[in-house]
Amino acid sequence: MNAIGVDIGGTKIAAGVVSPEGEILNETRYPTQAIPPNRLIETIARAIMEVREGFEVDGACLAVPGFVLTAKNKVIFAPNLHEIENIRLDEEMGRRTGLGVTVENDANAAAWGEFRFGAGKNVDHQVFVTLGTGIGGGVITHGVLLRGAQGAGGELGHVTIDPAGPRCGCGNYGCLEALASGTAVERRAREVANERPRSALGRLAIERQVLGEDVTRLAGEGDEAAISVLEETGVWLGIGLAAFVNIFNPEVVAIGGGASRSGEFIMGPARKEVQLRARSPSRDLVKIRVATLGPESGVLGAAALARGEDGKYVLDPSRRVA
Amino acid sequence: MNAIGVDIGGTKIAAGVVSPEGEILNETRYPTQAIPPNRLIETIARAIMEVREGFEVDGACLAVPGFVLTAKNKVIFAPNLHEIENIRLDEEMGRRTGLGVTVENDANAAAWGEFRFGAGKNVDHQVFVTLGTGIGGGVITHGVLLRGAQGAGGELGHVTIDPAGPRCGCGNYGCLEALASGTAVERRAREVANERPRSALGRLAIERQVLGEDVTRLAGEGDEAAISVLEETGVWLGIGLAAFVNIFNPEVVAIGGGASRSGEFIMGPARKEVQLRARSPSRDLVKIRVATLGPESGVLGAAALARGEDGKYVLDPSRRVA
Repeated sequence: MNAIGVDIGGTKIAAGVVSPEGEILNETRYPTQAIPPNRLIETIARAIMEVREGFEVDGACLAVPGFVLTAKNKVIFAPNLHEIENIRLDEEMGRRTGLGVTVENDANAAAWGEFRFGAGKNVDHQVFVTLGTGIGGGVITHGVLLRGAQGAGGELGHVTIDPAGPRCGCGNYGCLEALASGTAVERRAREVANERPRSALGRLAIERQVLGEDVTRLAGEGDEAAISVLEETGVWLGIGLAAFVNIFNPEVVAIGGGASRSGEFIMGPARKEVQLRARSPSRDLVKIRVATLGPESGVLGAAALARGEDGKYVLDPSRRVA
Repeated sequence: MNAIGVDIGGTKIAAGVVSPEGEILNETRYPTQAIPPNRLIETIARAIMEVREGFEVDGACLAVPGFVLTAKNKVIFAPNLHEIENIRLDEEMGRRTGLGVTVENDANAAAWGEFRFGAGKNVDHQVFVTLGTGIGGGVITHGVLLRGAQGAGGELGHVTIDPAGPRCGCGNYGCLEALASGTAVERRAREVANERPRSALGRLAIERQVLGEDVTRLAGEGDEAAISVLEETGVWLGIGLAAFVNIFNPEVVAIGGGASRSGEFIMGPARKEVQLRARSPSRDLVKIRVATLGPESGVLGAAALARGEDGKYVLDPSRRVA
């Protein structure tokens, strides 16, 4: 049966009707900034109603950036989306749409999308890391989506990889996110631009604020300063990935998010670092790939989760050995 | 049904008949050093035959320090135990004992023991870390023993927590094992003894080589130098544990192995570091405890795994969503 995935992001809400095979049959988008105050829930419901028009659907799942108590379908912390915090979002949305609605962390949903339809579709063990403003993570191990006891599991961006490193948005120091996210690329670009003012990167930085996508573009044009920014980022990313390879012994590590567009400038050094730091046989098995679904991974994964297919893997506590 | 767990360690082989409730009904031990060359397999088989005498048993599981390809019951790397490497250990032992025999990584077996009968017996999500000469790990998430694609998963000792840190036995730099194992305690004790020669630790170091257990004893007697060694170790341990808390959102982190005997000198700073570095709600939920089974965890866990009870959690690939 078809199901609806809704990806609630900082810039847009995207809702899609998705077939069991992972085809998006209908889609709609609302820019988050155009949503009036206290109209977020209403807008999500409208997007669902709009997109389901003419389709039979089985249910919907909302992918939300923040901490989700999965068992309770409750968001306990969602930066800039306070309207959906600490309410029974499943009940609220169910009342408005007449559908069964569940709630999932956005990186977990995207990870499930890649696992089912993308970079991990033929494996049972996949680590997914999304490089955006922050770093999100989602892990499937033995076919199980790793939610942890409360649904807060899979927080791969907040492992400490350098205790003396820069402060992270989470309050900790030296998190993977603080060293390898898009924000980290921009911070490092400013530093390198200062050191090398005659580079293309340095000259751009005098004109205006350098964004992550500028660094990627300049690196593609051969600017050594920009390349060094991405390479250093790749080394830090690889230090984190090596830990995940040792911990999970996965077949695939899929890298998604905007920063994955910088391709081999980041991926090359990251792969090399994994080979240096991870152990055999895990490091020999793992394929480190750019995720294949792009920004649709959230909608696709959420829809697949709405069908409850992860429940076929997740364990029934009543089956617990006595 | 009863089953046999065999814990193959650097100092001894312990085999025990264990009841389904986790009671050790009969046990035998062989010091590893007393085993003649090329008699390891024979000795393991003899231990099994000896201990089963008079008991009905269902099967046996060998807990081995090294990399185990679980699906193939094959050990691909076991330092100092080369006789059991790269053979079908299940077939070899089955032929000699007439029992169904499986093979598991020793830290995974100990983790399963704590999960079933010890520090994690009432939870579904447990991280187990054993502090010995090295650092081993075993994770149960959603009731599933995390073996990964090849059985090499759960290598918690080899996550990089300080890229500029000391070299680890695995060849990498700044692994958790290089900073928080018993070996790290002894290295740090030598450094602190040099800096503070008039401390009890410093005076002992002039007489002879300081062992981990000396540091624990001197700390218990109030020697500030020894206490500082354990406290610094606890901080590094906590940096690693915080990562595991964020990754797994576990209910319990159980700390086993010899170094856990130093108790609050290490555990206190480790808990504090987790509170500083891990995120809510995971850090609020988790209990960080000393493991409760002591050195028996391997025998108990291996026996429980011999009964195949983990199979009730592990996923049947044929049930994989198409």
